[in-house]
Amino acid sequence: MQDAQDIINAAHQMADAAGAAILPFFRIAGLAAENKWQTGFDPVTEADRAAERAMRGVLARLRPHDAILGEEFGATHGTSGLTWILDPIDGTRAFLCGAASWGVLIGLSDGRDIRYGLIDQPFTRERFEGGLGRAHLVTDGASRALAVRSGVDLAQATLLTTYPEVGTAEEAAAFRRVAARARLTRYGLDCYAYALLALGQVDLVIEAGLQPYDIAGPLAVVRAAGGIVTDWQGGPAQGGGRVIAAATPELHRAALELLNGGAA
Amino acid sequence: MQDAQDIINAAHQMADAAGAAILPFFRIAGLAAENKWQTGFDPVTEADRAAERAMRGVLARLRPHDAILGEEFGATHGTSGLTWILDPIDGTRAFLCGAASWGVLIGLSDGRDIRYGLIDQPFTRERFEGGLGRAHLVTDGASRALAVRSGVDLAQATLLTTYPEVGTAEEAAAFRRVAARARLTRYGLDCYAYALLALGQVDLVIEAGLQPYDIAGPLAVVRAAGGIVTDWQGGPAQGGGRVIAAATPELHRAALELLNGGAA
Repeated sequence: MQDAQDIINAAHQMADAAGAAILPFFRIAGLAAENKWQTGFDPVTEADRAAERAMRGVLARLRPHDAILGEEFGATHGTSGLTWILDPIDGTRAFLCGAASWGVLIGLSDGRDIRYGLIDQPFTRERFEGGLGRAHLVTDGASRALAVRSGVDLAQATLLTTYPEVGTAEEAAAFRRVAARARLTRYGLDCYAYALLALGQVDLVIEAGLQPYDIAGPLAVVRAAGGIVTDWQGGPAQGGGRVIAAATPELHRAALELLNGGAA
Repeated sequence: MQDAQDIINAAHQMADAAGAAILPFFRIAGLAAENKWQTGFDPVTEADRAAERAMRGVLARLRPHDAILGEEFGATHGTSGLTWILDPIDGTRAFLCGAASWGVLIGLSDGRDIRYGLIDQPFTRERFEGGLGRAHLVTDGASRALAVRSGVDLAQATLLTTYPEVGTAEEAAAFRRVAARARLTRYGLDCYAYALLALGQVDLVIEAGLQPYDIAGPLAVVRAAGGIVTDWQGGPAQGGGRVIAAATPELHRAALELLNGGAA
C-alpha cells in the first residue's frame, strides 16, 4: 500500500483519541448507587459514542477520502477504496465490570480483505498492531514482536471464548466438542483473547455471533502474528458471524473438523 | 493492633518482592514451541515458588516471630499469635494464558479472624489493600478509596465467578439459581473478581472449592471496602470451601437463600 506510513499514523492517532475519550468513563464510581442507570445514563454508550466521534474526527482531518464503518454511527461513504472498520469499545460487559479485557478495535479494508488493524487497551496501555509489515505489541515505549506459538497439538491447547453460551445451542454444542479435546478452556476475555493468541500465549479463539467490526482489527493482528482467522467453514471471517482464530494450520484443521461434527 | 504500621510495611515489601519474582516468568515466549512443558519446566510452579520464597525472606528479616501458611511451602510455626496466609499466584490458569486476572494474595490472621490483606497485580501495577484502617487501591503513586456500591438489587446485579463449572454438580446448580436472577454473570476473573467488588464495579462473587490461602487476602480487602464475605451458610469464610462475597446485606441474603435452594 503506497501510503502505509500515513495509514499507520492515522490509526495510532485514532487509538490515542479513542482511549482519551473512553478512560474518563471507565470504573466511574457510584453509578448504580445513584440509580443513574434508571435515569437513562449509560456510561458504555456515552464512552462508545465519544470514542467513535473522536476517531471519526481524526479521519476527517487526516484521511477524508476513506470510507468508515463504525459500530455507533454506521457507514460513511468514501472515494479512496479503503474502509476503516471501528469498534470503539469491544467488550462492553467487561467494561461494565471494571475488567480490562475490552479494547478499541480498528481495522482497515481495501474492499477485498483486511489489510491492517489495531487492538488497543488504553487502561493497561497495550497496543497490538498487525499488517502493513508490522506485528508487535507496543507498551509505554517498549515494543515486543507478536508471533503465535507452534508445536502445540489440540490436547495441549488453550482455547478461549467470551461466553460459555457461545451463541445458539447448536453453536455451543460445536464449541464444546472442541473444548472437550483441549487442555484448558477459559472465558470472558473479549477481544483481548485475540491479542493473547497473537502474543503466543494461547492457541485457539472460537466465537459466534460477531459483527464485522468485532473481528476486523483482531483479524489483522492475529494474521500478522502468523495465525489463521476464518469462519467455521474455513472461509473469510471478515463478515463476522462464526469465527475461529488458530495459532497453526494443524490446530485450525482439527478444530474445524470438530466444529462441523467430525472427530479430529 | 499495636504494630499496624510495621505489619503494613512488611506486607508491602512482601508484595514488592513477590511481583519482582513473578514478572520475569509472565508471558514467557515460545515455551510450548520448545516443548519445555514435557521436559518438566513449569513456569507457574517456578514463579509460584520463587515468589513465596521471596515473601518468606521478607518475613524472616522483618517479622521472624509470625507464623506462615503458604500455598507452596506449607505451615511455618510462629510465636506472635499472627499468621501470614500467602498465595504467591492465585489464578495460575489465567497466568498461563497471559491474562492479568491473577494476583499475589497476602492475608494476616490473628488466630480468630483475618485482620488485613492485599490483592496485588504486579503486571497492571494495581495493589488493593484492606484492613487496619486501610481500604484503597494504589497504582503508580495514585490512591483511590475502595468502597462497594449499594442500591443494586439482585435483578440489577453483576455476578462473577472463575469457572462455569463452579465446583460439584450440586454447587454449579446452586450457582445457576443465583445467576438466573442476576443481570450479568461473567467468568474467568480469579482473585481480581474480589478486587472489582471492592472497587464498586460488581456486586457478587460466588465460588466453591477454595483453599484458605485463596480467600484470606480477598476477604480483608472486600470487608474493608464495606462488603460481606461468608461461606454459603453465612458462616466464616476464612477456611475456604464455598465462598460468597456480596456488596450489601440485602444481596448477601438474597443470594444465600438461592444458594440453599430457597426462592429469593
